[in-house]
Amino acid sequence: MQRTFKLTIAYEGTRYSGWQVQPGEATIQGALQEALSAVSNEPVSVIGSGRTDAGVHAIGQVVSCRLNFSGDPERLSLALNTKLPEDIVVRDSEVIQDDFHAIRDAARKRYRYQLQVGGVSSPFQRRYRWRLRKSISVNRMCEAAKYIVGEKDFASFQATGAERKTTIRTVYACDVFEQSYLESSEGVSVAIEIEANGFLYNMVRNIVGSLVEVGSGKQKPEWIQSILDAKDRSIAGPTAPPHGLFLLRVDYPDH
Amino acid sequence: MQRTFKLTIAYEGTRYSGWQVQPGEATIQGALQEALSAVSNEPVSVIGSGRTDAGVHAIGQVVSCRLNFSGDPERLSLALNTKLPEDIVVRDSEVIQDDFHAIRDAARKRYRYQLQVGGVSSPFQRRYRWRLRKSISVNRMCEAAKYIVGEKDFASFQATGAERKTTIRTVYACDVFEQSYLESSEGVSVAIEIEANGFLYNMVRNIVGSLVEVGSGKQKPEWIQSILDAKDRSIAGPTAPPHGLFLLRVDYPDH
Repeated sequence: MQRTFKLTIAYEGTRYSGWQVQPGEATIQGALQEALSAVSNEPVSVIGSGRTDAGVHAIGQVVSCRLNFSGDPERLSLALNTKLPEDIVVRDSEVIQDDFHAIRDAARKRYRYQLQVGGVSSPFQRRYRWRLRKSISVNRMCEAAKYIVGEKDFASFQATGAERKTTIRTVYACDVFEQSYLESSEGVSVAIEIEANGFLYNMVRNIVGSLVEVGSGKQKPEWIQSILDAKDRSIAGPTAPPHGLFLLRVDYPDH
Repeated sequence: MQRTFKLTIAYEGTRYSGWQVQPGEATIQGALQEALSAVSNEPVSVIGSGRTDAGVHAIGQVVSCRLNFSGDPERLSLALNTKLPEDIVVRDSEVIQDDFHAIRDAARKRYRYQLQVGGVSSPFQRRYRWRLRKSISVNRMCEAAKYIVGEKDFASFQATGAERKTTIRTVYACDVFEQSYLESSEGVSVAIEIEANGFLYNMVRNIVGSLVEVGSGKQKPEWIQSILDAKDRSIAGPTAPPHGLFLLRVDYPDH
């Protein structure tokens, strides 16, 4: 008998061509579907809360799927983790109402973007941080980040060629903070966390690229407001590279 | 004109067959020598402060070499880092007296061993931590660690088949402490740092394996003393796996 499952998964995106299945490419969705099909002896499709790009990581991606698995959900996690490659881990499995849908029902998402500012390149951080050679002002970035919070039109932060019906989103938080590091030679670690009711394509990476322009002194904090006002992608800063980005959490208040 | 250089390097040992050059194998020493030879247009040999095993990492390995390089040492670091693979980084280069020798002159070394206790497997920690499924007592391990400190005969913690002339070493510190983690699902992070005037082969990993036996409750803290007294490898706990081990620092008080 098929039941609907909600899985919470973590992955290191480094060696994948992103979330979505593509023929001949290693993808997160493809690896998950393969493991699920092996466990349940039937072809299984999964729906992720959203696609992540090549190189982007997840700590709390959520997927829904329908599955022939009669055991305890915890045993499903164990079974999947023995089949999955080491860089994808099922953190939690639960049985959920049949009408649960990982995209449609997602109310909020939180992303983190990690920077390494200064210091030498680190063999241990290279996959997880965008390294900036010059110093940046976290205070200036905090000031700039305030313009991002609220219900706004984020058209200027949307990748061209991936337009959505509406470009209005509500950002609940845009926090910039220093993290501590074990090794001093690795410079200063800065993280930017953004939580919203939805994100446009490349929105986090485009916001981060613009905040860095402010942090480095090339632009003033108020510049962020003028980007929003322009509703034009070409006005904003460059897109930050994918490997600093983590999907932290997806919230489903009704599930 | 040849000068003698002291290089401080970091590496992720995951994909290497250890430090020492072996035909047909990827090694840290081999990769370094290749980069140095390319920069100076001559065959270069390097001497490391000690060998690290396959899978073991370094944050502050020190090497000495003689080289035809007339520029600023900082430019040597830059030149080497453009030639080296991403998982090996030269953190610092300096010109040093010609009689400097990275093994002979090393006065102290400090290693760190990283554990993940409980929690789910993490795609981001899997290369850098030995994951223990059951909880351990850090207090008991701290108590056990006290027996390690001092000038002692560590014959019981030496890998068989790698005997040295003398098995007496002075351990200056053996610290066990909890570290904080970003993600709560990754369990508790525990680190063990050991500093000594020298180490026998596999000594850190054998001590860690024994401390974990105490932490898990299988043995009492005093058991460590009885291992030392026995001077017999077969009495001690299992050898901890290589991927949790980091060579943190090598001290040269006269250089």
